[in-house]
Amino acid sequence: MNRLYSDMLSRVEMEIERIEMPNSPSNLYNPIRYIMGLGGKRVRPILTLIGSQLYSGKYDEALNHAMAVEMFHNFTLVHDDVMDSADVRRKLPTVHKKWTSNIALLSGDGMLVLAYQLLQKSSPETFSRTAEIFSNTALEVCEGQQLDMDFADIDYVSMKEYLGMIRQKTAVLLSCSLQIGAIVGGAADLELVILSEFAESLGLAFQVKDDYLDAFGGAEFGKVQGGDIREGKRTWLTVKSMELLGSDADRLREAYQIQNLDKRVQAILTIYQELDIQSLAQKEVEKYSEIAVSSIAKLNGDERAKETLSWLVDQLIGRTI
Amino acid sequence: MNRLYSDMLSRVEMEIERIEMPNSPSNLYNPIRYIMGLGGKRVRPILTLIGSQLYSGKYDEALNHAMAVEMFHNFTLVHDDVMDSADVRRKLPTVHKKWTSNIALLSGDGMLVLAYQLLQKSSPETFSRTAEIFSNTALEVCEGQQLDMDFADIDYVSMKEYLGMIRQKTAVLLSCSLQIGAIVGGAADLELVILSEFAESLGLAFQVKDDYLDAFGGAEFGKVQGGDIREGKRTWLTVKSMELLGSDADRLREAYQIQNLDKRVQAILTIYQELDIQSLAQKEVEKYSEIAVSSIAKLNGDERAKETLSWLVDQLIGRTI
Repeated sequence: MNRLYSDMLSRVEMEIERIEMPNSPSNLYNPIRYIMGLGGKRVRPILTLIGSQLYSGKYDEALNHAMAVEMFHNFTLVHDDVMDSADVRRKLPTVHKKWTSNIALLSGDGMLVLAYQLLQKSSPETFSRTAEIFSNTALEVCEGQQLDMDFADIDYVSMKEYLGMIRQKTAVLLSCSLQIGAIVGGAADLELVILSEFAESLGLAFQVKDDYLDAFGGAEFGKVQGGDIREGKRTWLTVKSMELLGSDADRLREAYQIQNLDKRVQAILTIYQELDIQSLAQKEVEKYSEIAVSSIAKLNGDERAKETLSWLVDQLIGRTI
Repeated sequence: MNRLYSDMLSRVEMEIERIEMPNSPSNLYNPIRYIMGLGGKRVRPILTLIGSQLYSGKYDEALNHAMAVEMFHNFTLVHDDVMDSADVRRKLPTVHKKWTSNIALLSGDGMLVLAYQLLQKSSPETFSRTAEIFSNTALEVCEGQQLDMDFADIDYVSMKEYLGMIRQKTAVLLSCSLQIGAIVGGAADLELVILSEFAESLGLAFQVKDDYLDAFGGAEFGKVQGGDIREGKRTWLTVKSMELLGSDADRLREAYQIQNLDKRVQAILTIYQELDIQSLAQKEVEKYSEIAVSSIAKLNGDERAKETLSWLVDQLIGRTI
């Protein structure tokens, strides 16, 4: 593992333990401690720390901001799990399953407020600058989630609409996390533009790769093959297929009607193969990865932090696709 | 109607129409416009405007802050209605009934973010000061709502616990609204303390009176008598009765088990009469009203604004109790 990343990861885990919040009412705060303690790659808070390291050569001063973006991210997980009726997260019960939907709703609300309180642990000027980008991003994330729900009821979604949705739902928060750290570190405005280009491209590449692996990744990723197909989920692959099939798109819709799930997966993978979706997805991931990598080269920042960003692209997107 | 209040009320209604937000996704923003447009006394934004008028002699500069507290208040209504499965608000369907629970959840989240954005329409220093009290208050409101839900499953709630809950759930937001306006108007710190004493007392008096009217108010208030009793809701009256009944408290619990609702109301009102709950509630309302009124006298602010505060106490608590 990259040394700087591993240092940052342990600091992030330590800080999460140390976030100050009351003990009572326990039904409000225990769910918050629970979801925050579930682990994970902690990509967003680490992006915040890298952002600070890039321009100030250190990351400690951005720890509260890193906690703010991680708190916000976990708020979205708690509320999204309620909306999606998801029972399991990281092999453990989701908040609304372990407690109730009402508790998940209210704890989530509390987390959004706590995120702003964490952001405010800085000077009024820094708070003002970081809160502005944070609020804009938070609203975009809400919009992305609403579009995702809207799309479930719509027959045809264009690639442009789909990419816009995953950009809002996933990519903008990565960008926000990195930019907030950079602001704390004292970055110039032009740097923020490059960082945003980097993080949004990283987010899109990651999401398309995630969709790709679900269909083509096979058993080594610990998931049943074609999970998205079995759930009838719209992905980059379905959107691209619909676009390519054009007036023949009913073929894909009919395949989605097959009740036997193994046969459904088979039928849809056959269509994907026919359209060469696999290599189109690979090209899309490569396109966004390359934008991300070339953005790093443009940055005027700490070399170790830049190396860590490159390492992160490799980890999240990899060369295995 | 008080002249200043009526000026402020029309400005508030105008401003609500003018709050900037995107049109799309419509399932995110239409519910926000809907709930914000449902009307009402607009007590919280007007308290913000009065707070500004008190110290600067004008209220225009606090309009965005007034919108922020009204947006926050409506966010709590949308999410509370989901949690309480309430179908009707102001004689119209609640957001989750008109749309869906998921849409109510997500629109509410968006409203909390919009509240911060409205608060940020000021200098970094003012934003920082107002956001601090706003976040602290928002977290207390979440705590109050959680306690209210927790209390439903608890056999005995003390008067201290009950007052603590309604203070957090209702009174602190009135205090926050007034203080934020005062900060914008340039109030000294000591004034904020007096304003907080005023608004919290007003909130407690209002809530106890509300509980009182529900049981003793009769038909002229447009509600069925004993609505809270019929719903089995815990109120100041039940908490006080339990306290007074002591080891005899099972009498009240048994009365709540009566399935015929008219007979239940009758049985419980009989217990209230026996304990003289009616005059105890009146004394409690008077106690908090007097604190509120005497706080106004201590304020060093614009006389018209102080008169408007007195008028507001009369309107909300009245002399009719």
